[in-house]
Amino acid sequence: MSVLIVGSTALDSIKTPKAENPRLLGGSASHAAVAASFFAPVRMVGIVGEDFPRKYLSLYRRHDIDLAGLQIQPGKTFHWAGEYEENMNNRRTLATELGVFETFSPDLPEAYRKTPYVLLANIGPDLQHHVLDQMRKPKFVVADTMDLWISIARPSLLRLLKRIDGFVLNDSEARSLTGEDNVFVALRRLHQLGPSHVIVKLGSHGSVLSGPRGLFLCPAYPLSRVVDPTGAGDSFVGGLMGWLAAAGGKVDAHIRKAMVHGSVVASFCCEGFGLTRTDRTPREAIDRRVAELTQWAAF
Amino acid sequence: MSVLIVGSTALDSIKTPKAENPRLLGGSASHAAVAASFFAPVRMVGIVGEDFPRKYLSLYRRHDIDLAGLQIQPGKTFHWAGEYEENMNNRRTLATELGVFETFSPDLPEAYRKTPYVLLANIGPDLQHHVLDQMRKPKFVVADTMDLWISIARPSLLRLLKRIDGFVLNDSEARSLTGEDNVFVALRRLHQLGPSHVIVKLGSHGSVLSGPRGLFLCPAYPLSRVVDPTGAGDSFVGGLMGWLAAAGGKVDAHIRKAMVHGSVVASFCCEGFGLTRTDRTPREAIDRRVAELTQWAAF
Repeated sequence: MSVLIVGSTALDSIKTPKAENPRLLGGSASHAAVAASFFAPVRMVGIVGEDFPRKYLSLYRRHDIDLAGLQIQPGKTFHWAGEYEENMNNRRTLATELGVFETFSPDLPEAYRKTPYVLLANIGPDLQHHVLDQMRKPKFVVADTMDLWISIARPSLLRLLKRIDGFVLNDSEARSLTGEDNVFVALRRLHQLGPSHVIVKLGSHGSVLSGPRGLFLCPAYPLSRVVDPTGAGDSFVGGLMGWLAAAGGKVDAHIRKAMVHGSVVASFCCEGFGLTRTDRTPREAIDRRVAELTQWAAF
Repeated sequence: MSVLIVGSTALDSIKTPKAENPRLLGGSASHAAVAASFFAPVRMVGIVGEDFPRKYLSLYRRHDIDLAGLQIQPGKTFHWAGEYEENMNNRRTLATELGVFETFSPDLPEAYRKTPYVLLANIGPDLQHHVLDQMRKPKFVVADTMDLWISIARPSLLRLLKRIDGFVLNDSEARSLTGEDNVFVALRRLHQLGPSHVIVKLGSHGSVLSGPRGLFLCPAYPLSRVVDPTGAGDSFVGGLMGWLAAAGGKVDAHIRKAMVHGSVVASFCCEGFGLTRTDRTPREAIDRRVAELTQWAAF
């Protein structure tokens, strides 16, 4: 089955202590769509400007991503510039130029409206609502978010939580949304806000799912070197949704393996700037890492 | 088979944002010995003063810990006072009074010298060497350490690493010993220093083993409330060594399950001040949490 992915499509200029890379392909939808494309057909909704490099359109196409929902508008593509500190955990934003994204209205092509798996990747909750308003009985809807929306659009985000099946956020976002330091207490609070499945991402420490079948402690793939973690969370949830869409059937029968596959795609994402490493990752390499992780986590 | 545990035996005064508890039973050997005692016969070597409360001797005995190696000397018991910050991750030492510990020489009763499993719990590396000098062909020797010894006794610690099979330390200690931020790179460096098995503890994120059979990513038992994490690391390695001693046979056939059991004993430790929660934990409760953790980590 297919997965519909809506989110930001951007150009990222990323600085780390070791290197600087301008105008990489970025954005939550880009990372999630490429990640999902390893496992299932992907339909992407986003917006770019006329300056959007052709090579990035080719990249999407190389991964068989359906671009009927990608709007190309007069103006500039959303541009984000950020810098990572030495330990690669803390980052600061140097510049945010919204460009055409400022007037983005994620209107879905008719053919997209019955897609069974829907990923509302990180964009403002009002836009996420707008997407849901157009969908016809999706099977499983997951939303991601970020600290910004928790701060400036909390009421809209809280309303969204009543409309979705799965909610994905990182530990500091879980803290600021619930006011709870403890991840497992925060998970219970997040369920009370609506979603049947809540996943808290813990960076290099993996992630935790709380769902109808209880907890799942998902390990991260061990990496000796992190080049650029931008988009790792989007890759994780993209891979997860791609795997679920490919598996079909009952979500709870597949969600653990889906998280492990998401985790592995995210590990490749971290090994290169932007999507450079993920883009040239063969499917066999993903399967190999999943096999390793399976071996390393068994007891 | 039996496990020999050498380390500190102390009185701990612990302050958290929620409560304050003076003169609890503490010390690396106390925590490790009680943890190990759930699984195997334990021989403990330590030193206490004449002020050492009888109720704590009873506690050791209740757990069938062999006290032939516990020296009771004129003077005061080692006393440590510390305070935890709100998030329970950072702690600071308020007072350290060595008392009789200052002249501690861990001399082993003759009957202890052939113990197959040896845990050199956290004490100075010179004392750990002194214990090893007295052992006759132990089967598996594990040492724990702390940041203090890495700072002030590094040469002795580095010599120790050539004499042991397993080395256990936390992530920040691994960083300061190897100069490496990345846990997996640090693990490789630590192997080069001697031990065939290296375990890096990651607090609430579990632990990682690197051994002859590769990596093992060991989850922590999820806790909704941490009352006092003092001794959790000692409980982990104590439980691990107790399980290994009980299992016998090839270490690598059992070490993963041993870590999981250590992890679960550590979870109980965190749920009460000092050893109060661990002390009243029935064995069935440990088995129940191991079963839960097994279910929550499977994919």
